[in-house]
Amino acid sequence: MTTPLLLTDLLDRSRELFPDKEIAQYGDGGPRRRYRYRDYYDRVARLAGALRELGVRPGDRVATLAWNHDRHLELYLAVPLAGAVLHTVNLRLEPGEIAYILDHADDRVVVADTALLPALEQARAARPGMFVVGTDGSAPGVLDYEDLIETGSPLSGPPDVGENDLAALCYTSGTTGPPKGVGYSHRSLYLHTFAACLADGHAISERDTVLHVVPMFHANAWGIPFAALMTGANQVLPGPRPAPADIARIIESERVTYTGMVPTVAVDLARYALARGTDLSSLRALVLGGSPPSDDLVRTFTEDLGVPVFQGWGMTEISPMGTFARPLPSADHDPAARRRFVRTQGRLLPGLRWRLVDDEGRDQPHDGKTPGELLVRGPWVAGSYFRDEHPESFTDGWLRTGDVATIDPDGYLEIVDRAKDLIKSGGEWISSVALEQALLHDPAVAEAAVIAVPHERWQERPLAFVVLHPPAEDTEDTEPADLLAGLRERVPRWWLPEQVLVVDALPRTSVGKLDKRALRDRARAGRFA
Amino acid sequence: MTTPLLLTDLLDRSRELFPDKEIAQYGDGGPRRRYRYRDYYDRVARLAGALRELGVRPGDRVATLAWNHDRHLELYLAVPLAGAVLHTVNLRLEPGEIAYILDHADDRVVVADTALLPALEQARAARPGMFVVGTDGSAPGVLDYEDLIETGSPLSGPPDVGENDLAALCYTSGTTGPPKGVGYSHRSLYLHTFAACLADGHAISERDTVLHVVPMFHANAWGIPFAALMTGANQVLPGPRPAPADIARIIESERVTYTGMVPTVAVDLARYALARGTDLSSLRALVLGGSPPSDDLVRTFTEDLGVPVFQGWGMTEISPMGTFARPLPSADHDPAARRRFVRTQGRLLPGLRWRLVDDEGRDQPHDGKTPGELLVRGPWVAGSYFRDEHPESFTDGWLRTGDVATIDPDGYLEIVDRAKDLIKSGGEWISSVALEQALLHDPAVAEAAVIAVPHERWQERPLAFVVLHPPAEDTEDTEPADLLAGLRERVPRWWLPEQVLVVDALPRTSVGKLDKRALRDRARAGRFA
Repeated sequence: MTTPLLLTDLLDRSRELFPDKEIAQYGDGGPRRRYRYRDYYDRVARLAGALRELGVRPGDRVATLAWNHDRHLELYLAVPLAGAVLHTVNLRLEPGEIAYILDHADDRVVVADTALLPALEQARAARPGMFVVGTDGSAPGVLDYEDLIETGSPLSGPPDVGENDLAALCYTSGTTGPPKGVGYSHRSLYLHTFAACLADGHAISERDTVLHVVPMFHANAWGIPFAALMTGANQVLPGPRPAPADIARIIESERVTYTGMVPTVAVDLARYALARGTDLSSLRALVLGGSPPSDDLVRTFTEDLGVPVFQGWGMTEISPMGTFARPLPSADHDPAARRRFVRTQGRLLPGLRWRLVDDEGRDQPHDGKTPGELLVRGPWVAGSYFRDEHPESFTDGWLRTGDVATIDPDGYLEIVDRAKDLIKSGGEWISSVALEQALLHDPAVAEAAVIAVPHERWQERPLAFVVLHPPAEDTEDTEPADLLAGLRERVPRWWLPEQVLVVDALPRTSVGKLDKRALRDRARAGRFA
Repeated sequence: MTTPLLLTDLLDRSRELFPDKEIAQYGDGGPRRRYRYRDYYDRVARLAGALRELGVRPGDRVATLAWNHDRHLELYLAVPLAGAVLHTVNLRLEPGEIAYILDHADDRVVVADTALLPALEQARAARPGMFVVGTDGSAPGVLDYEDLIETGSPLSGPPDVGENDLAALCYTSGTTGPPKGVGYSHRSLYLHTFAACLADGHAISERDTVLHVVPMFHANAWGIPFAALMTGANQVLPGPRPAPADIARIIESERVTYTGMVPTVAVDLARYALARGTDLSSLRALVLGGSPPSDDLVRTFTEDLGVPVFQGWGMTEISPMGTFARPLPSADHDPAARRRFVRTQGRLLPGLRWRLVDDEGRDQPHDGKTPGELLVRGPWVAGSYFRDEHPESFTDGWLRTGDVATIDPDGYLEIVDRAKDLIKSGGEWISSVALEQALLHDPAVAEAAVIAVPHERWQERPLAFVVLHPPAEDTEDTEPADLLAGLRERVPRWWLPEQVLVVDALPRTSVGKLDKRALRDRARAGRFA
């Protein structure tokens, strides 16, 4: 009963029980490669052997800088099988940030898509002893991935590690300070995989064909690759820079049953599918995460496209799954009630614990009204950062999420705001998230972002940025005054923003989240448009 | 990420997320009590406090001798919450065996149904310091359960134990030698609970209402009480000695969605429901375990009663779930193929590993043909027995199941025989299970059992016992010669039993399994009828 929980067990399981299930690799508009778990196993075993032959030892870090493709999926298991730590690097970072991260993690090898090699130049200059492998061919000083697989002697498990040793590592792109590394142990990823396959969670099963839209450099692609290996689900990888059209066509042609993405990608997918009549109805679950979806988006998918939508909430520090929003059975025959549940962040996954605390650390009631900072702990929640002290992020073993939230009596979480995005006006809190939702209620508004700006009398006041839908013919342009008038009916008078600014687009971070820091910079510099 | 996995977390979870879900207690033909998880929590906390006040310390054993009822369910969590070990004792054992087990486990307290107190007399005489609690009232020298709850100071978790400390203990009723104790750690039960809630496993979810037919003294009632707490499923307890009529009526009135039982109980349930027109269609899953169901039984449930049937296989030593038989999607529209899948023991649950080995310990192919002894290991598989050395049961950390089985290329397990039930005739193996299935193919046969009897020339030969259905009017009695003639068409000639004996009933063990040891005794004594 003390058998260790090792991630590589999932690899053995997939070969033994599901040797004929498929991995399909897309790219350049169509399928490029299709192979089976039995072949996947062989390639992973050879790659793990090749890494060992390069000198990779248990505990060493091996970085990836790659899009979502078959070779990245091979690295997901080959690196842990070699006993090493899979360090997925966000390819949207600046070269200087990448260099910082590779240096901080002390990566011994980096495997990169050949097209991304320029982003590595700075890092390579600083780490001359680091091996560089190109996923699609060699170059000067760059090893060829396929050569490694061809020459590697197959390694078989289990690796010479314990369950609490690291299997993976991912850096968060914090909004302040340098990136912080979150290490995932074999045990934590194993338990997280169980959570992903629960009937009341994402419910990944052998009947699924999963499509990896979430970047594989982003918190283990939500852990879905591991869940697919555990259950024998088919996996589909979209390749570099998938456009909404690619995602829609892949779902239709592969009869994808499960996928996850951020709402902004889902908005584009829905628009494309509706315009072209793409059939997305094979999806049994579209899970949205990263930020809450609008009511309109949920309705479009469920009612117009026949796709059940769920919301998941998590963080890099939580491996990443923390909650899952499955509507209560009482909402089964009430579409509006279902949408309300889906727009919450949902309920805590089993295995985890949570608390809501005020500024003094006192527990707040779970009444759906009283906000507090959300603390989380559990077997797949980070208790520290990799090679860094960040005591401000932890309290008595609890992770401070930085999210301000309410929890209702049924246990549904609603993130009210990031702690630092709350607007404190005249001693009262204004929720920027609630204001954004109120703005989105206007059918003319496509996107909305609200930030705090300093104010002499009130300390802080809200400032709103909105992106409008293209106006239909014969209609007048929507003006900020119209939006303010609409808001007046929906929010308390003292919540009304100082200004509503119409902009062409909102700034986003490297993982596609709204970049409020950039908006604050703009506001500070007076660049409002 | 090193947060311990403690079973008592499930109790906190149920109170926090599912306070209004129900526990319904039946008995005397109808519902006797109905209460909510919030009340369950309060009673469990008080009971745990009362146990501590009786002197129970972390690691101490607390025995139960009880039917499936609400108070037994309270003990399931209260004992671990007190840091102690829940020791469920099989109430069908002889008083001498019970005394042996209580002495071996060194139980500090025993909580027993008042009607079962006589079976404890021998044990009490031998253990004068042991506290005895009656679940339904006091008696001389017996404490009253409700008094304990009334006077106990609520204890809150977590208990002062580590994840590898024992939370539960169950003795196997071996067919040879004294009973052996299997201890379950907090960690092992926690992981087993995850496995019970997987979409590809029993898939226990918040939408379920589970009925506990499997005795709660039998390997944690298959772990379903813990799964219900994790997911917030409603729980229904049938009370003492539930008859098929009780089970049928409870399923109908509570709209039970999930239950598990042994095939012999299911046969009676089906017969009752068909005769009375009971509606069992609320069941989304009827899981059969303990022995494989006949094709006829599976068909009756799926086609006549509209109840999907699955098979699970396990052992007390595996907490108990080892496999789950969910048909491959390819069988979706082929009822006969579905039944074939369900009649296998199914596929290994994630987290576990298995091997098939021959007498010399060499791995055998998973080709669906080659038999071998099944070995299992994993985080909820025993690696030793409680306070006993049984090295013959383990090989290099693997549990020797004693089952001879095949595994097909898709990973479906079929138990061919108990190692000791195989018949070795002229150097070749004859499967007693296959012979029993061949006998059951005759519509006249209700039950069949085949054992080995010594034979001068062939070393061993098969001997068959059958129970016949009552003959329909106007038909002649089935004779052994008819059965042998039928067998000739289904099995190799050298498999034909020496004799087919028609008997009124087959002997069963205390957990309802066919008692082949008793049949061998009968054969040895020449008592064939």
